[in-house]
Amino acid sequence: MKNTLTGTAVISLSLIIAASCTAATTDLPIALQMYTVRNNGTLEQQFALAQRAGFHAVELVSDQGVTAHEMKRLLSKYHLQPIADHVQLDDLENHSATIVAFNKAIGNTTLVMPWIKPDVRPDSKQGWQQMGQRLDAIGKKLKAQGMTLAYHNHNFEMKKYDGQTALDILMSSSNPEHLKLELDAAWASRGGQDPAVILQRYKGRVFAIHAKDNAPIGIRDDQMNFAPAGEGLLAWNEIMPAAKAAGVQWYIVEHDKPGNEAEAIITESNKFLQQQLSPAGVK
Amino acid sequence: MKNTLTGTAVISLSLIIAASCTAATTDLPIALQMYTVRNNGTLEQQFALAQRAGFHAVELVSDQGVTAHEMKRLLSKYHLQPIADHVQLDDLENHSATIVAFNKAIGNTTLVMPWIKPDVRPDSKQGWQQMGQRLDAIGKKLKAQGMTLAYHNHNFEMKKYDGQTALDILMSSSNPEHLKLELDAAWASRGGQDPAVILQRYKGRVFAIHAKDNAPIGIRDDQMNFAPAGEGLLAWNEIMPAAKAAGVQWYIVEHDKPGNEAEAIITESNKFLQQQLSPAGVK
Repeated sequence: MKNTLTGTAVISLSLIIAASCTAATTDLPIALQMYTVRNNGTLEQQFALAQRAGFHAVELVSDQGVTAHEMKRLLSKYHLQPIADHVQLDDLENHSATIVAFNKAIGNTTLVMPWIKPDVRPDSKQGWQQMGQRLDAIGKKLKAQGMTLAYHNHNFEMKKYDGQTALDILMSSSNPEHLKLELDAAWASRGGQDPAVILQRYKGRVFAIHAKDNAPIGIRDDQMNFAPAGEGLLAWNEIMPAAKAAGVQWYIVEHDKPGNEAEAIITESNKFLQQQLSPAGVK
Repeated sequence: MKNTLTGTAVISLSLIIAASCTAATTDLPIALQMYTVRNNGTLEQQFALAQRAGFHAVELVSDQGVTAHEMKRLLSKYHLQPIADHVQLDDLENHSATIVAFNKAIGNTTLVMPWIKPDVRPDSKQGWQQMGQRLDAIGKKLKAQGMTLAYHNHNFEMKKYDGQTALDILMSSSNPEHLKLELDAAWASRGGQDPAVILQRYKGRVFAIHAKDNAPIGIRDDQMNFAPAGEGLLAWNEIMPAAKAAGVQWYIVEHDKPGNEAEAIITESNKFLQQQLSPAGVK
């Protein structure tokens, strides 16, 4: 039968397979954190790059310097869905109305606090409890407006105080309904904690995972030793099942310092996640 | 009584206390890895710096560019005991006789393999097994000459292959009598593994611990985010008891990139270890 296929039949079959693959990758919960491509031209050029690398969803950095109207136009043009927005603590506390309005206008309902500067960063059990309470209050207010708040970690939340990590103190000082987790797997690991264990602990409370990897020393030294997921030291065969079991909604590609290799890095990262998340093993 | 002490009695008491403190710190198993001060002038200037920072023992980097006779003279002049020597794999395999002769002449019996370059680094279970067997052969030969071989880790040995870290594969592929561990606590942690757990696993097989810390991102960014032990993310209240229980012989201060702060870093590190290791809490 195989050998008797006509040229037309082969082409038709190829088109069907191609269509299936496209459909499958579109449906996968994979997004790009736009911070990764911040040095790749204008916002429009960055969205074009995201599309070229095979993404259908993005996580934004604040308003990216444009109006909600312009953001909507660009997202629509490049067929990108906004799934979250990184917003600094000061803006969450003092410019909430503007931020919520912007995000509602573009169709995004999740805000993520991405970073705490060293000079205002807690470094005690009590300090992290207070930060948890502070975020709880913000998250409660956002929830009343139909929005969700999540916390994105680096390595400093992995420090232990009386045997408990700062992350655990923070999360236990806030209501699970008011604060979700966006787990940066690479930062957690280089902070000395196991991302798979954290995922197990916060089952049902993990909005997303920043699916990136740590390169060993000597590899990608000029890129802060970050690497596309699957290329580095992390045990993805333990992390991915834990993420699925935890109910992670989004797998987000990020690289803190991609240099001039952003396109190659995000393309490779996307392919790895597609392979991991597609039941058919789409490449 | 306190108020009736004469000036002479106060001075005598002070001298007794000072003498006790000096004796206590001299006896503590703390050393400096000389790589830390590689940019601090001549070897003699580096040894003078080590002495100024309160060290009584050093771990060398190969022959440091001098003859055994000159090394002995300098170590003696600055009252420093050589407790180990970092020697590259190629030298261990091909220039063993020279290295052993140099170290026996200066009174050191422990050689440590410090690093594997990326281009010859194993990246499979089989590769790490072969590296373990290779080091076993070297260690066996050294043991017959009264020498001990140990392995110093970075982060790449924390990668898992079939659920087992490269370090575990390496150590289980060699005889405990032929290969000891020099655990770099900071590198193990930034590789995602817990130094305290590793110490428990290799009880009786840990020659030394490189007692250094990881600063959180935003702190010491120009120093590869390494920090004096006690200043960073590591849980020393878990690591130090585990090190003692494991029978660690030496606590070695190291910093991979101290910039122009080497003296402050090694002095602070030494003080921390003295506090941790002295029953009297010597500062």
